[in-house]
Amino acid sequence: MAKRTSYCGQVSKALLGQEVVLKGWVQKRRDLGDLIFIDLRDREGIVQVVFNPVFSKEALETAENIRNEYVIEVRGKVVERSEGMANKKIATGELEIEVSEVTVLNKAKTPPFYIEDDLNVADDLRLKYRYLDLRRPEMTKNILLRHQITKSVRQYLDQQDFIDIETPYLTKSTPEGARDYLVPSRVHPGHFYALPQSPQLFKQLLMGAGFDRYYQIVRCFRDEDLRGDRQPEFSQIDIETSFLEPKDIQDFTEEMLANVLKDTKGIELKKPFPRMTYAEAMNRYGSDKPDIRFAMELVNVNECVKEAGFKVFTSTIENGGMVKAINAKGAATHYSRKDIDALGEFVGIYGAKGLAWMKVEEDGLKGPIAKFFKEGAENLIKAMNAEAGDLLLFVADQEKVVHESLGALRVKLGKELDLIDPSVFAFLWIVDWPIVEYDEDEKRYTAMHHPFTMPREEDLALLENAPEKVLAQAYDIVLNGYELGGGSMRIHQREIQEKMFEVLGFTKESAEEQFGFLLNALEYGFPPHGGIAIGLDRFVMLLAGEDNIREVIAFPKNGRAIDPMAEAPSVVSQKQLEELSIRTTEIEEDE
Amino acid sequence: MAKRTSYCGQVSKALLGQEVVLKGWVQKRRDLGDLIFIDLRDREGIVQVVFNPVFSKEALETAENIRNEYVIEVRGKVVERSEGMANKKIATGELEIEVSEVTVLNKAKTPPFYIEDDLNVADDLRLKYRYLDLRRPEMTKNILLRHQITKSVRQYLDQQDFIDIETPYLTKSTPEGARDYLVPSRVHPGHFYALPQSPQLFKQLLMGAGFDRYYQIVRCFRDEDLRGDRQPEFSQIDIETSFLEPKDIQDFTEEMLANVLKDTKGIELKKPFPRMTYAEAMNRYGSDKPDIRFAMELVNVNECVKEAGFKVFTSTIENGGMVKAINAKGAATHYSRKDIDALGEFVGIYGAKGLAWMKVEEDGLKGPIAKFFKEGAENLIKAMNAEAGDLLLFVADQEKVVHESLGALRVKLGKELDLIDPSVFAFLWIVDWPIVEYDEDEKRYTAMHHPFTMPREEDLALLENAPEKVLAQAYDIVLNGYELGGGSMRIHQREIQEKMFEVLGFTKESAEEQFGFLLNALEYGFPPHGGIAIGLDRFVMLLAGEDNIREVIAFPKNGRAIDPMAEAPSVVSQKQLEELSIRTTEIEEDE
Repeated sequence: MAKRTSYCGQVSKALLGQEVVLKGWVQKRRDLGDLIFIDLRDREGIVQVVFNPVFSKEALETAENIRNEYVIEVRGKVVERSEGMANKKIATGELEIEVSEVTVLNKAKTPPFYIEDDLNVADDLRLKYRYLDLRRPEMTKNILLRHQITKSVRQYLDQQDFIDIETPYLTKSTPEGARDYLVPSRVHPGHFYALPQSPQLFKQLLMGAGFDRYYQIVRCFRDEDLRGDRQPEFSQIDIETSFLEPKDIQDFTEEMLANVLKDTKGIELKKPFPRMTYAEAMNRYGSDKPDIRFAMELVNVNECVKEAGFKVFTSTIENGGMVKAINAKGAATHYSRKDIDALGEFVGIYGAKGLAWMKVEEDGLKGPIAKFFKEGAENLIKAMNAEAGDLLLFVADQEKVVHESLGALRVKLGKELDLIDPSVFAFLWIVDWPIVEYDEDEKRYTAMHHPFTMPREEDLALLENAPEKVLAQAYDIVLNGYELGGGSMRIHQREIQEKMFEVLGFTKESAEEQFGFLLNALEYGFPPHGGIAIGLDRFVMLLAGEDNIREVIAFPKNGRAIDPMAEAPSVVSQKQLEELSIRTTEIEEDE
Repeated sequence: MAKRTSYCGQVSKALLGQEVVLKGWVQKRRDLGDLIFIDLRDREGIVQVVFNPVFSKEALETAENIRNEYVIEVRGKVVERSEGMANKKIATGELEIEVSEVTVLNKAKTPPFYIEDDLNVADDLRLKYRYLDLRRPEMTKNILLRHQITKSVRQYLDQQDFIDIETPYLTKSTPEGARDYLVPSRVHPGHFYALPQSPQLFKQLLMGAGFDRYYQIVRCFRDEDLRGDRQPEFSQIDIETSFLEPKDIQDFTEEMLANVLKDTKGIELKKPFPRMTYAEAMNRYGSDKPDIRFAMELVNVNECVKEAGFKVFTSTIENGGMVKAINAKGAATHYSRKDIDALGEFVGIYGAKGLAWMKVEEDGLKGPIAKFFKEGAENLIKAMNAEAGDLLLFVADQEKVVHESLGALRVKLGKELDLIDPSVFAFLWIVDWPIVEYDEDEKRYTAMHHPFTMPREEDLALLENAPEKVLAQAYDIVLNGYELGGGSMRIHQREIQEKMFEVLGFTKESAEEQFGFLLNALEYGFPPHGGIAIGLDRFVMLLAGEDNIREVIAFPKNGRAIDPMAEAPSVVSQKQLEELSIRTTEIEEDE
């Protein structure tokens, strides 16, 4: 084999007149008899190579038998395409290669789908032939982008004296949190390792060990029910520091993220990023991860509607609930009654019993319930900042339902009404989170972040008797309506950590059994510390403009946690199970 | 908290006269009444801080109650120590801090062992309190070195257009190779994922996908019986490329390793690294990973001894075996008969039935068997390049036993006789490996590297009928007698891969079942490719001058695959097992 002199996608005018050696895949072949054009593709792009008896008769003959996806090596001269033949869609479109030599490095059968963008085939087919799917320029670009992002992150953190430290993947099961993936131990029958849901405790212990600034791009595992952008294994940019304040941690996180945007997208972000309290985010956007690229905020209209005589509203308010509305500006004509009924069904998913609505026309409010608001109309219109052509949508319920349903509706309408500029990356810090929430199913408080989150100093006294009022030193970072990452200061004193476990319903014994090593460690000179974890897959997804993290993971699982290519998970041999001292209690036939 | 202005270990003369804020751990405290000295430690080193009522009465009072391993913050002025008080053992030894303010950030109980180098306590105690063990300067340095190494590796590979791509940790069990760690699937009862022993197939498929230059610093998992430098999980620098020749891959690997040595040790390595065939390495050193920092090569003395009348030797040679010897130069007086008996026991571990020996004196050979060599003495002495004072050690057996036993003995004597310069890093390529070896237990050929290794083109014809004669396009890299990494060209054509599976005893069906996705992939335009994997833990260990990889892993398992700190593996709840549709067949009580 000759040495490649350039990637196909990087052939440029600087090489004009020079001989190059390229290696790549045949994207397309056009045979005009004594002239053959091949679009040759590698990871960096495509270039046109031309076979012509004038350049080489032998090469032309070889080219006659070349088919799509063959791997070939060509040697030839870089020339400008003739007048009018330029292809503006590709970077090398004004150039082509006059081929003097060609070697077929490997043949190819006809692939099960076209190697091109905007593919429309079943996801499982793409995953079964992932090695072909990844050849598609869009997928190649996503994987290259992922590398650029991690490279940028590492460069920044390395410069800032952070130390990349690997933490174990075979560790201990801790029931707090999501479901663990377990790994049976062969050497210790009846015992199991767990794959980490995050390296949270290890990174805290690294602070105890004095490393002071840690990072790791690390795999995490959660055996949860799968949803759109969830995977059994995912990666996070995991960071922990000692001796810093939340503001310091937020500052370097912003710097790091801004560097990535600059390095990969050429975008200069404005810093500092905006900050919003959890309470304000819920109040204005009905969400703890608001997409602030568009307005359409939730407005509390209790005052405007409580006297209006519309029973649904008044009784809700009387029962301690609330009425909130959003104004879909100019959307009155976009939504028919039937459309609005569908929106009503949509909010039903979030527990709302109904969606009330009114359209604003020049002569006032219209719609089935408008008659109740003849008198208050002006106030309502003013509160909603409404004008003719707007559609007002109301949910009346307890606070949680109002926020969740209207928050989701807002995002849906934002997309439907094309209010979102996809070129904007809107970061936002959400701060002052409650430290716990009450879990009605389990009848106990659960940690809003995790049990190691530090309460605000001024709230410590409330921890015992009113934990629901305690705010945490926690800060989540949101990007375009997605929770990008979560961070907090951690508890570094044994007494507070013990108190927290107590609040969360642990007994002294169960806390000791599960987290004894952390409690002990806190007694041996543990520094004040805190950190953050950024969801890498989601970050890449958002920067790639994709809407599923599968599109930015080289070999993801499908929606049923299966890898259709390697066929994992699979049945294993009886011998393997015996060695692990386990038995399966239910054997299903191969699906 | 005030902002830290410098690490303790980085206080330098450039800061003389300036006020600094330091944060760290109390390494040592000397209380001279109205004068207290504290050695303050952070990850970068130690500096002396001084409390004196002249600087601050309040700080002195606080310091009276400070104990070892307290976490404190001090503010003070950098000054030179008085004449004669310098401590040359530490980098900051000529300086000290006059403390004007001190804050105790956290207290500490007395640790279970001293936070200092050359600790002599049980390994399990160190691992149980790993967060304290890692505070020891030697351990901190190892972890920092590890980061410098990976940083250097990444910088080099990034510059060379390699793409860091993550491969899955939840994948499919493939019985070829070591034992897999399994992960039961909850969603698919009776089915299991396996943790990867290496990302071999995925990295090959990434070449099929066109990524062309891949790397990853990746965790690998092997459920093997544990030995000195093995861990259930370990990390490798994993590399794969398309379109390159073995020489190209060796070249950039050398470049990468040389960069690391330069960046971390300031050592300039000579390139290219020496190359030796597998056959030559076995012949000269009795090892496929020879430590070439010292000579003491194995010498075949068949010709000198076959007529000597010493039955053990002659009958061995007649039976197709061989006699080899090593010359422990000048060691005749170092080893008593009793010592040599012990060496005989040592070679017994490797199957040698005995160790014959002679000492060289001015007037000829001495020792129990010397009488047989009265006549051939001169030839033997010449062959062994021996002189008075040397000790000659012989093993007579079949080739495999001779090489293994004398190879091991050579290494042992090299250490005992202090022949090894620990400051030298001797890299060596071992090439031209056999592609298979015959496994007497399994009565079949097994892959010397793995089943995807490409035979030499010129040997392909032998694959069917004489696979043991086929050499592989494989190259291992050895450092100071350790196998640092292994690489090879891979098979990129279905027919050859199928043939290889056949040689290894697979049926068409079993090959299809386990590796069908690879076989399929090879038909869709798979490029010629090859790569290498470097054992990161071992590399760090050798550069750190340690002799166990545990010393360079933040949270390793002990010799029984247990993490004594987190207490993993552990018993899990019945509910967890039920969700996974598995049962344990044998429950042991907690150990």
